[in-house]
Amino acid sequence: MLVGELGEEALLDRLRRLFSSTAAAISVGIGDDAAVTGPAAGMQVWTTDLLLEGVHFRKDWQAPEQLGHKCLAVNLSDMAAMGAVPRYALLTIACAGDTPVDLITGICEGIASLAAKTGTAVVGGDTTGSPGPLALSVSLAGELEAGEAPVLRSGAHPGDRILVTGRLGGAAGGLRLSQQGSGAGFPQLLTALNTPVARLAEGHAARLAGAAAMTDISDGLATDLRHMCAASGTGARIRADAIPVYESLPEAAGRHGWELQELVIYGGEDYELLIAAPPDKAGRIAGAIEAAGTPVTDIGQMTAAAAGIVMLDPRGAEQPLAQRGFDHFRR
Amino acid sequence: MLVGELGEEALLDRLRRLFSSTAAAISVGIGDDAAVTGPAAGMQVWTTDLLLEGVHFRKDWQAPEQLGHKCLAVNLSDMAAMGAVPRYALLTIACAGDTPVDLITGICEGIASLAAKTGTAVVGGDTTGSPGPLALSVSLAGELEAGEAPVLRSGAHPGDRILVTGRLGGAAGGLRLSQQGSGAGFPQLLTALNTPVARLAEGHAARLAGAAAMTDISDGLATDLRHMCAASGTGARIRADAIPVYESLPEAAGRHGWELQELVIYGGEDYELLIAAPPDKAGRIAGAIEAAGTPVTDIGQMTAAAAGIVMLDPRGAEQPLAQRGFDHFRR
Repeated sequence: MLVGELGEEALLDRLRRLFSSTAAAISVGIGDDAAVTGPAAGMQVWTTDLLLEGVHFRKDWQAPEQLGHKCLAVNLSDMAAMGAVPRYALLTIACAGDTPVDLITGICEGIASLAAKTGTAVVGGDTTGSPGPLALSVSLAGELEAGEAPVLRSGAHPGDRILVTGRLGGAAGGLRLSQQGSGAGFPQLLTALNTPVARLAEGHAARLAGAAAMTDISDGLATDLRHMCAASGTGARIRADAIPVYESLPEAAGRHGWELQELVIYGGEDYELLIAAPPDKAGRIAGAIEAAGTPVTDIGQMTAAAAGIVMLDPRGAEQPLAQRGFDHFRR
Repeated sequence: MLVGELGEEALLDRLRRLFSSTAAAISVGIGDDAAVTGPAAGMQVWTTDLLLEGVHFRKDWQAPEQLGHKCLAVNLSDMAAMGAVPRYALLTIACAGDTPVDLITGICEGIASLAAKTGTAVVGGDTTGSPGPLALSVSLAGELEAGEAPVLRSGAHPGDRILVTGRLGGAAGGLRLSQQGSGAGFPQLLTALNTPVARLAEGHAARLAGAAAMTDISDGLATDLRHMCAASGTGARIRADAIPVYESLPEAAGRHGWELQELVIYGGEDYELLIAAPPDKAGRIAGAIEAAGTPVTDIGQMTAAAAGIVMLDPRGAEQPLAQRGFDHFRR
């Protein structure tokens, strides 16, 4: 059935039912002018991210549930990067009338499933017809414990160790496979692209263990490290051979002729955490993250800003890390 | 200059500066993974609304500042309808690379200006390139005083008086003029369409004075009254000749051959408040709204659900209020 056949009110009814279980403790959920939640204990954390068909995804690259998972996960990842706990989400869907209802409810099932797993309540949203691409926007509010402060990008100092959770380049590999239409051999890479895991427990643990600065790696290690250095007024020196490479990526890169380092350093959407850890706390922070079930790797250290952002190759030669971020408006 | 020439980071810098004054007291504003705000005192209220080019607006129908004003105002109106006070906004902009930078900064100036007037801090957002129409999405969080409850759509009872703030049909008249490309003679109607006023003080005052149910009239009086009756389990009887008509609308309708009642009852986007007032509190509620500077009109009363939703014409004849809401997906 198409969205235009079902009609707006019937679609809203379905979505309301679908999200009702995620918002059981909410004073007022979907259906009034606005949603209402109880008083917050500590500071609140706010983020929003839009996924747009043709820019961030293609409909035929993943199941609807995966697309829903991802549009919440990218917001949860921002929450993780502050060391905060997600609480409430608003969802906006813009789609054409000839969109299959199953696509929309599948997306919402993916959102509801991840919301339930992460203690996030979908409390409201907006739906609208669109003559253009499918658009999915999530706004997310989270909380910090009373008296606690978030971990910002700007807190790093020269001498801090640079830690990375998990492994990098998987999503970039998955994107290449999707673009080539040849994902069959490496399903893990497609999973990395389509169902990223927000490092909520890891970010929370890193904050409690004393992380100085933190951000998620959404735009690629090089770009997000550059953002952290710019915000903190530091430089950085990382070791190329220390960067944790996604399992099966070397094999896929070999088979398809990709340059591995390109994917690992400049590829985006891994949604791992990049952490600046004071030297005396780095061990504790790494231990706390590993206790949350995720490997963590020391890839280098923060330096004075004048030293720039450089990478040591395996022979010990320094090369500046190129500024090569993705710009949404320059194509 | 085009957005694609300026580039994403430079555009973000401009927007950050533009919104910095609206978020002076915010712990962490635009620029980190998420924004951070202080602990909330009372309950929190959440809403989001998307404006999409070709669906909700056309670029040539209003100044950029008006478009910015409107995309915040429609969210503020939801906040008003809960009787809550707006606090924090997130803004998402999706636009093509060949969008003039002045259009985007003009939109943001309109948002920043209305944000400052209403005590709303723009604390974050997302920008992305779009191959499709310009999209503007605002998510808004507001608060209620500690111990206070919001006014819902579902609180009306048979016997409640039905009150409407301001005057209706102005935005629908402005839309017709815009569609005809002939707005010159009736600038007030274009103002009603392009720079709607969210009734924040009025909604707050109505809540404190004991309003039983409240919603904003965004989809037209007939549709929003039907929503309130459905949520409350009531019927309603309104008097056609009591409905307050927007100034200059009768003259415009006469000149252009529009059916006046169609615009006043079924036209949307007036963003006035529709209030169910217990009979013993109706006078106090009306007085509180007028004290906030806005006229208020008693247009009828809530009835038992079995009586349906009817309108009395000037000769005293009853007619059912047709179900003729706008459906975003059926075109």
